[in-house]
Amino acid sequence: MGRAIRPIVLLTDFGLRDPYVGILKGVILSVHPTAQIVDLTHDVGSQDLASAYVLLRDSYRYFPRGTIFVSVVDPGVGTDRSIIGIQTRDFVFLAPDNGILGFLQHDRQVRRIVRIENAKYFRPTVSSTFHGRDIFAPVAGHLSRGLNLGQLGSAIRSIRSLKLPKATSTPAGVSGEVVAVDRFGNLVTNIPADRLSSPGTVCIRVGRREILGVAGTYADRKAGKTLAYVGSTGFLEIAVNRGDAARKLNVRVGQAVRVRP
Amino acid sequence: MGRAIRPIVLLTDFGLRDPYVGILKGVILSVHPTAQIVDLTHDVGSQDLASAYVLLRDSYRYFPRGTIFVSVVDPGVGTDRSIIGIQTRDFVFLAPDNGILGFLQHDRQVRRIVRIENAKYFRPTVSSTFHGRDIFAPVAGHLSRGLNLGQLGSAIRSIRSLKLPKATSTPAGVSGEVVAVDRFGNLVTNIPADRLSSPGTVCIRVGRREILGVAGTYADRKAGKTLAYVGSTGFLEIAVNRGDAARKLNVRVGQAVRVRP
Amino acid sequence: MGRAIRPIVLLTDFGLRDPYVGILKGVILSVHPTAQIVDLTHDVGSQDLASAYVLLRDSYRYFPRGTIFVSVVDPGVGTDRSIIGIQTRDFVFLAPDNGILGFLQHDRQVRRIVRIENAKYFRPTVSSTFHGRDIFAPVAGHLSRGLNLGQLGSAIRSIRSLKLPKATSTPAGVSGEVVAVDRFGNLVTNIPADRLSSPGTVCIRVGRREILGVAGTYADRKAGKTLAYVGSTGFLEIAVNRGDAARKLNVRVGQAVRVRP
Repeated sequence: MGRAIRPIVLLTDFGLRDPYVGILKGVILSVHPTAQIVDLTHDVGSQDLASAYVLLRDSYRYFPRGTIFVSVVDPGVGTDRSIIGIQTRDFVFLAPDNGILGFLQHDRQVRRIVRIENAKYFRPTVSSTFHGRDIFAPVAGHLSRGLNLGQLGSAIRSIRSLKLPKATSTPAGVSGEVVAVDRFGNLVTNIPADRLSSPGTVCIRVGRREILGVAGTYADRKAGKTLAYVGSTGFLEIAVNRGDAARKLNVRVGQAVRVRP
Repeated sequence: MGRAIRPIVLLTDFGLRDPYVGILKGVILSVHPTAQIVDLTHDVGSQDLASAYVLLRDSYRYFPRGTIFVSVVDPGVGTDRSIIGIQTRDFVFLAPDNGILGFLQHDRQVRRIVRIENAKYFRPTVSSTFHGRDIFAPVAGHLSRGLNLGQLGSAIRSIRSLKLPKATSTPAGVSGEVVAVDRFGNLVTNIPADRLSSPGTVCIRVGRREILGVAGTYADRKAGKTLAYVGSTGFLEIAVNRGDAARKLNVRVGQAVRVRP
Repeated sequence: MGRAIRPIVLLTDFGLRDPYVGILKGVILSVHPTAQIVDLTHDVGSQDLASAYVLLRDSYRYFPRGTIFVSVVDPGVGTDRSIIGIQTRDFVFLAPDNGILGFLQHDRQVRRIVRIENAKYFRPTVSSTFHGRDIFAPVAGHLSRGLNLGQLGSAIRSIRSLKLPKATSTPAGVSGEVVAVDRFGNLVTNIPADRLSSPGTVCIRVGRREILGVAGTYADRKAGKTLAYVGSTGFLEIAVNRGDAARKLNVRVGQAVRVRP
């Protein structure tokens, strides 16, 4: 019986204009000719660890069991920062130990954390500026062929995490902020929808705009109207039906959002 | 004997910066681990149904028999708009019933039209804002594994279509317009080349520019010169040899084009 | 025993907004349903032969033996320029004979050069403006299924090459220039690192900036500081640690770079 397929999912800030992503794939296929490789995105802002953190945290659950997530957003490449591998119940994650896997820090599905250091599975020569090519890609290739994470280095007990702004609840309501703006201009906040006690009647303030009530979907408001709704990952979002909320409200990442009962 | 491979071709307006396309692929692979997934493009203008219509109409014939086309340009997500599946002699198409599959409306190769409503093949929870992830992706995964379209819902008889501007012929010539501008700045019109009776001697007017005769290829004119030619999909196009016609002629989608004998 | 997989690597200036790349893949899969297709990049500047040359030269070694590289940057499409195939010890390369494969001109691993002319392996109708779809894609599909390059046309003895600027050495030092600027704003030069006799003490001048010594990696300088280092392909590069050198130094492709002992 065949072994399960272990797809490799790539998340980088390399962009698609340069050959770096293609080279990663070449190295992976050199190690594992039938590897299945999926791009999550390569357009994370250059060295933007916070975006990579949020993006991976909100995406990984949609992939099949066995998937290997390779996150190369790595401003510290060539320093003594470690590269870590985390085995959870269902997945493996590879990344520099720079905080972007911090969403797993207290996750009870974590089974093992390893410092990646077994050069046997690296490219023969490791540059000081492109560990994606020389370490991450060949290691991912070996893992997707079935290598056990434990073969790659010694166990460690803790990892770094980014400190991302968290929503805070008081009797007067919930305060959070915009943590992402997507291609459509929709504003993703860090306010979990399950914090809102009576969604139908809350008042949401973002910049100078006040929005009454949480809608079910875009089309619950007329075209051009601003609305709040529960986004597809469970956080409060703000959009303009058939429009661009970021542009209309002149809002960027970091803008405060307040919800009053 | 193995069943034929049924590739899944994705066409969306999601862009590649956000994780949405990666998530679609994760869901597809969760249903069908060896699915073959191809990106047609994800850079259709946000909610630009007309571009998606033209783009898919002019591309689908180049894919292998059995291909499943998944078009998620869906400004009406969460409303009561239907999701439809169309089986033709060679292909399957999935899309919201918002007109982007209208080029199939009178196609004699259509074998069956179905309203997609069998939630057994959806993700367990369906959000109101991301049917790409919750309906289109898992349904495409099941179809690529061999599920029959008829299992997905009840047959319907008609679909919506966009009204795209059509070229009109009069004794004085053919009138059309620019329907797309590609990366090279080439202007794609809606004037079928076979409407031109004597291509060598026609006069083509776009904006203030007059072009004499239809050329065979770019290099039939000197570098920097404007030319008309029959594009690779059979419509009249206008280009500048080794240059950018949209910029040189200051032309956008919608610009009138007139051909006189 | 199964035959080796022969991945197809695509390098074009088509961009990802138009359907052209997707169509190439459709045609390849029509010929070879299980072909493995990898994008090197499709964002080479429109008709920018020099960038395609450098990019492919510095990338191809990272792919598995048997890989077929298809380079469609083709401003001469439809003219009498040839399409060539080059078999090296480990790879096959397809491209217009416009110089972008010139880095193979004197390579001793070249085994065979062929003018691609056997229309049996083309699409039935060949347009004059889209040979990527009508010739390159089906030919690559057949090669990846195991077709021998010799079946595609007659042997030829020489190919064209671009004249790219080369670094020159004098007793006073090495003179070169910036040949690429990547997404991070790193400046890639054409100065091979092995030309520098005492890397630790050289003085590198780019524009008005002088940089002392070649660093090991970005983090050998403080954040915001400019540094020179040996890039991952063996050439001298200039960067700003956690910053954008192209922007900080206001430098573009073509800028002179001088190294003095």
